[in-house]
Amino acid sequence: MKPFGRVVVCGVGLIGGSFALALKAKGLVREVVGIGRTRASLERARELGVIDTIATEWPEALDGAELVLLAMPVGQMEAVMTAMAPHLGPDTLVTDAGSTKRDVIEAVYTHFKTHLEQIVPAHPIAGAEKSGPDAARADLYAGRKIVLTPLSENRPEAIARVREAWAATGGHLHDMTPQEHDRVFAAVSHLPHLLAFALVHEVSGRANAEQLFGFAAGGFRDFTRIASSHPEMWRDICVANRHALLAELDTYLTELAWIRALLSQADGDSLQKLFGEARDAREAWLAGKFDA
Amino acid sequence: MKPFGRVVVCGVGLIGGSFALALKAKGLVREVVGIGRTRASLERARELGVIDTIATEWPEALDGAELVLLAMPVGQMEAVMTAMAPHLGPDTLVTDAGSTKRDVIEAVYTHFKTHLEQIVPAHPIAGAEKSGPDAARADLYAGRKIVLTPLSENRPEAIARVREAWAATGGHLHDMTPQEHDRVFAAVSHLPHLLAFALVHEVSGRANAEQLFGFAAGGFRDFTRIASSHPEMWRDICVANRHALLAELDTYLTELAWIRALLSQADGDSLQKLFGEARDAREAWLAGKFDA
Repeated sequence: MKPFGRVVVCGVGLIGGSFALALKAKGLVREVVGIGRTRASLERARELGVIDTIATEWPEALDGAELVLLAMPVGQMEAVMTAMAPHLGPDTLVTDAGSTKRDVIEAVYTHFKTHLEQIVPAHPIAGAEKSGPDAARADLYAGRKIVLTPLSENRPEAIARVREAWAATGGHLHDMTPQEHDRVFAAVSHLPHLLAFALVHEVSGRANAEQLFGFAAGGFRDFTRIASSHPEMWRDICVANRHALLAELDTYLTELAWIRALLSQADGDSLQKLFGEARDAREAWLAGKFDA
Repeated sequence: MKPFGRVVVCGVGLIGGSFALALKAKGLVREVVGIGRTRASLERARELGVIDTIATEWPEALDGAELVLLAMPVGQMEAVMTAMAPHLGPDTLVTDAGSTKRDVIEAVYTHFKTHLEQIVPAHPIAGAEKSGPDAARADLYAGRKIVLTPLSENRPEAIARVREAWAATGGHLHDMTPQEHDRVFAAVSHLPHLLAFALVHEVSGRANAEQLFGFAAGGFRDFTRIASSHPEMWRDICVANRHALLAELDTYLTELAWIRALLSQADGDSLQKLFGEARDAREAWLAGKFDA
């Protein structure tokens, strides 16, 4: 595989930083340029060797760039695309790491009308409750799934090259439509995050919050791990994907209404059956039965 | 501390087995007798050295026993108490490890009317998704909280001796009223379990369950870890503590209704504030701010 020349990473936190480190670890990039809104993060990323240079403006960043990765929270996509689009040359490929795809692609069609050939959206499935350049690591994507949602306008060579970059991180590539992507992740990622934030928020607002947290144990800790996720990033995801997420939330509320009825009736048999089915499904999943 | 003589453990799985192993590891017990409904578990426990001998009937088990630990799922308490009560001598102490306390204590008042002095209810806060004698380990309770809910009828020496036994496991003892116990654990343990079971069950019933599980990642795995818990044990807990649990579920549903409204209105600011407050509360908890 031919190494990349100049790669621009916009947003040098966990996601963008780990992409840069993965390419660097394999010697597959000549130069990584970081750009972003927080100077301190950029400087920290350079200090850590996550990026080589800092660009403050898009014309400077894009000069001679082979590939751009947009790795900011999805709520910043519009602003960043607006700023970069006028300076994007025809030979610079663009991909992103946005956790939602329909809204990002909508923004791509708005801002990159004449560049649709070279913009290949993606979403690496590798979150963590940590964020920032210090959390970045070269192996974050190793063995993880990376979803690509290519546009029908994409040049085949653009798709191929972007695939090479993501594959170089050690992730496994999967193609999906943006609609399919957003529905699937609303169910297995966005909803659980929302539920975990909701529980911690609700408990923390109680008069006896101190006592409740004082007796919370390992089950609570793991259940709520994702409630330590980045609030702004999750605001953006929830707002961007709110239609799919509302549908998932309503489905879940229906399930809870049913369980509520079983509890009210003290219907132990049905509860045990439900719990058993859940456990079996989860164990089958852990055993790899559903691996794509 | 004076070692225990004969200790009877009813239910030789994770909870009872770990209690036995902890006492054994410190040389604080002469003999551990196992009793329970599943012969294979008892034999496995003996094979693993978790117990020394197997008793098949209560008169045999209780003969000369200093302490009995009831460590079965709470749904079996009634049946076990009925069987053991006629054979319980005045010098044998009894404690339990039931995850709910009001129902266990109600059963104690029903079945042990003349033995209330010697029965000291407890609940060690140490679950795990594993169960059975193979999951038992001597350090399960080390550093964990152990709640005692003594009865007003208890002899002070009975409480003191039962405290010695639990303290020997390495856990930290806390006294609570049964009502307080059941409300606190409905909030921070029983409800999260119910929510996790509900999510996995709901996803597993979908037409595209395979695809959904195929793209579920680390967040989903941790959020649902407790959905791999023992179905029968959780049926019993949910049914026994259903009044407190319904109250918690309804409070949570109110929180979800509010979040649903924020999502519908695409109110990103309020969502971010809520997520941020949840994250801050969780981080404060992890940092030990709420340690009892």
